[in-house]
Amino acid sequence: MDIEQFRRAGHEAIDRICEYYYTLQDRPVTARVEPGYLRRALPSEAPQSGENFDLITQDYEKYIMPGLTLWHHPSFFAYFPTGSTFEAVLGDLYSGSVPNPGFNWSASPASTELETVVMDWAAKMLGLDSSFHNCSKLLCQTTASESALVAVVAARSRYTKQHPDVSSEKLLIYITTQTHSLGKKAGLVLGLNVRALEVTVEDNFALRGDTLRRALEDDCACWATPICSELHISVGTVGTTSSGAVDCLGEIGLVLEDYPFIWLHYRDVCALGDINKYGDSFCTNFHKWGLVNVDCSGFWVRARASLIDALDVTPEFLRTRHGDAGTVIDYRNWHFGLCRKFRSLKLWFVLRSFGVEGFQRYIRETVKLGNMFASLIRESAEFALVTPPSLALTVFRLEPYFPSSVPPAKLNELNREFYARVSARSDIAFTQTDLSGTFCVRMAVGAIRTSEDHIKRAFEILCLEGRAALEEWRCATGGIE
Amino acid sequence: MDIEQFRRAGHEAIDRICEYYYTLQDRPVTARVEPGYLRRALPSEAPQSGENFDLITQDYEKYIMPGLTLWHHPSFFAYFPTGSTFEAVLGDLYSGSVPNPGFNWSASPASTELETVVMDWAAKMLGLDSSFHNCSKLLCQTTASESALVAVVAARSRYTKQHPDVSSEKLLIYITTQTHSLGKKAGLVLGLNVRALEVTVEDNFALRGDTLRRALEDDCACWATPICSELHISVGTVGTTSSGAVDCLGEIGLVLEDYPFIWLHYRDVCALGDINKYGDSFCTNFHKWGLVNVDCSGFWVRARASLIDALDVTPEFLRTRHGDAGTVIDYRNWHFGLCRKFRSLKLWFVLRSFGVEGFQRYIRETVKLGNMFASLIRESAEFALVTPPSLALTVFRLEPYFPSSVPPAKLNELNREFYARVSARSDIAFTQTDLSGTFCVRMAVGAIRTSEDHIKRAFEILCLEGRAALEEWRCATGGIE
Repeated sequence: MDIEQFRRAGHEAIDRICEYYYTLQDRPVTARVEPGYLRRALPSEAPQSGENFDLITQDYEKYIMPGLTLWHHPSFFAYFPTGSTFEAVLGDLYSGSVPNPGFNWSASPASTELETVVMDWAAKMLGLDSSFHNCSKLLCQTTASESALVAVVAARSRYTKQHPDVSSEKLLIYITTQTHSLGKKAGLVLGLNVRALEVTVEDNFALRGDTLRRALEDDCACWATPICSELHISVGTVGTTSSGAVDCLGEIGLVLEDYPFIWLHYRDVCALGDINKYGDSFCTNFHKWGLVNVDCSGFWVRARASLIDALDVTPEFLRTRHGDAGTVIDYRNWHFGLCRKFRSLKLWFVLRSFGVEGFQRYIRETVKLGNMFASLIRESAEFALVTPPSLALTVFRLEPYFPSSVPPAKLNELNREFYARVSARSDIAFTQTDLSGTFCVRMAVGAIRTSEDHIKRAFEILCLEGRAALEEWRCATGGIE
Repeated sequence: MDIEQFRRAGHEAIDRICEYYYTLQDRPVTARVEPGYLRRALPSEAPQSGENFDLITQDYEKYIMPGLTLWHHPSFFAYFPTGSTFEAVLGDLYSGSVPNPGFNWSASPASTELETVVMDWAAKMLGLDSSFHNCSKLLCQTTASESALVAVVAARSRYTKQHPDVSSEKLLIYITTQTHSLGKKAGLVLGLNVRALEVTVEDNFALRGDTLRRALEDDCACWATPICSELHISVGTVGTTSSGAVDCLGEIGLVLEDYPFIWLHYRDVCALGDINKYGDSFCTNFHKWGLVNVDCSGFWVRARASLIDALDVTPEFLRTRHGDAGTVIDYRNWHFGLCRKFRSLKLWFVLRSFGVEGFQRYIRETVKLGNMFASLIRESAEFALVTPPSLALTVFRLEPYFPSSVPPAKLNELNREFYARVSARSDIAFTQTDLSGTFCVRMAVGAIRTSEDHIKRAFEILCLEGRAALEEWRCATGGIE
């Protein structure tokens, strides 16, 4: 493809994207395709000769578009949002036009330097204190899972340097049963033990200080290491995936004052005072609730040296004058890969185009819409909240008035039927979850185009399907009441 | 930014990119900026109110562009290329317009299914045998480092399941002193021992079977584990970064027949018969020599189960009907993150637009240009090859005729001076390396716009700077001869 062909195909792509966004609302939210649809439709080998690009983009419309789940559709409420703004798309377009692997400063000074600048901007916007910024302790990762892995590797390195005689089999990561899958995955990947602490419905599934203290005392006693010399890395969560639970970070911080070798890693926004007081590292995904397209995960670490000590590899052909002089950051030693995308450009575009006010307005609007939905649930006769709403997430279930009590298993059955009906629709999307044996439905607001009307419509659909499910269930069970 | 503002900004972005490529040849290859240039130029906080997008793109031209190293410039010879085609840019533009995190099939069926289809296409194009394809054993990763990490995690999981009593401290990864930094990094990240086997100039820095066998016998004997029950994971390289050395894969494969628990992971293209015969996994970066923009690393594994066993985490809210039925691939269990970009779209665009023939033509053209450069070096009186050229990489140094012999340290000094002169230029880029104490210069061809004229010009520049360096060195040392 030559430059003029690119101009034509590029303008056409932009126009197709505009057309797509004009019609977004009328498209199905979830894909109506069956497993294997694409393999059956496409040839089994790459073409021998090159094909015309018009044909390729026609096939994109014909085969790819119908197989997409539209995460940025205003009626997508299934998961926490995936960031999607035109500014970020343009950021990726510009950075893609000047690709570079960014493994050290010289590989492209602008991409390293912009990353330090905008991650400082973001730290200040979020209210992280100055020991997390100052141009040297922050980076854009691909995903929160990678950020968590990097944090654990840095924590392990810090601990084993201080305690060289402790076997790696004694190292332990603390999470809760509600922590994001990244906690368990870090254990699998790094071959470390993971202990998932129990959290209860009474505490709204948040980790309490006492639970952590008991676990620490148990583990130290039973592993018989006199100074409690396992490595514990604690992952605190502000807003769990399942129910939006916020761990009691203040309590956790106090407990950990007695265990200073423990690295405390936080995820997501909130509880700022405690993060600034106790956190060793902090991560939040701009590619979720932060208006930036995937991938862009913000990761801040207080002690830069722990990270670099853990990950520095510098063969001769990667040495540079500036790197040797220590006057620049070589980001290859801050993450797992060597190659590193120029992700900060889209974050820069978004923060400038929205401004801090625009960013706040978006977050507040989604929380307001979430609260509006939670109120509709709270006031309804058919539905009940399972936990208090958290930020823009509501966890609820069908729980109409019954003259006599209904066994929990029966209520779960009703709700599974209800959820099956809802998830069979293509005009709206929710997700299921399970909280200590209670089957429930999650509703997360976050798409930038979601309005009050979409929330009202969502509630109407839930009422409709709820009544239908109830009726069907009554017929099937012969009426439990 | 509304849809019409996006249309305008999008068309403008496309036009700017066209303008940029028309003038690419006249731009400096390397950035002429000093560390900290961007921090000094940009505000220290994000703006409170949103800014006009025209201003933002003007600042992109003003501050970012001058800080870029142009990896796709026709006179960039410093590192293996970074993929850069208009087709891939458009692929990213389309996929960015419909962002989804792709962690399971339902998150967007098209992105999962297209990944299996095009990775099969790529496997067939590269000639990997059928136990590496069939729609189920391949994926697009972010980087080769991540692919290597995943391979090691799968290997560790396979080994420890078979040998549950072996301590992780006995596990060992074999690489060579010339293996890419990903080998050492895998050890750092996963906390495993790494043994870098020595390779010699006589073997052109390739790993021989005998070297591996001796190491295996030593380690088994001295660690006193009767059935050699450490985990050895061997990383074989076809084309090292430093000198393009190709490990003797046939010999290695024969040795490993006696050690069947060892997982053999390959990087890069070539030695196809041996990879198909002995390899457990294989990785090559399409975002390097494969015409696709970063990031797009192809990773194939023969035993899919080893991978999934090692990485499966499925909380309730990620369960789906299709996932439970096992009729679909949920890629979150194939890599470290949860979130996964729709990378296969750009690979699809590139393979279709170029066709297998176009892909081959590009690779052959760069090898031909590399050979042309190597011939110029070979025939010159001033320069000498340090190792035989490998694919499109030539490693050489200044080595003019001297009437009497010059000590190696003195020759290194001359070549450092020579390289300092070359790397001070902004119209061309090379890199240094060190092969067993010999300082030398690397020249890699790969940019899609490089022509014979650029090679001739590169050689002229080297001659010019070589003569100048020699003169300066003679003045400084008072003439060694």
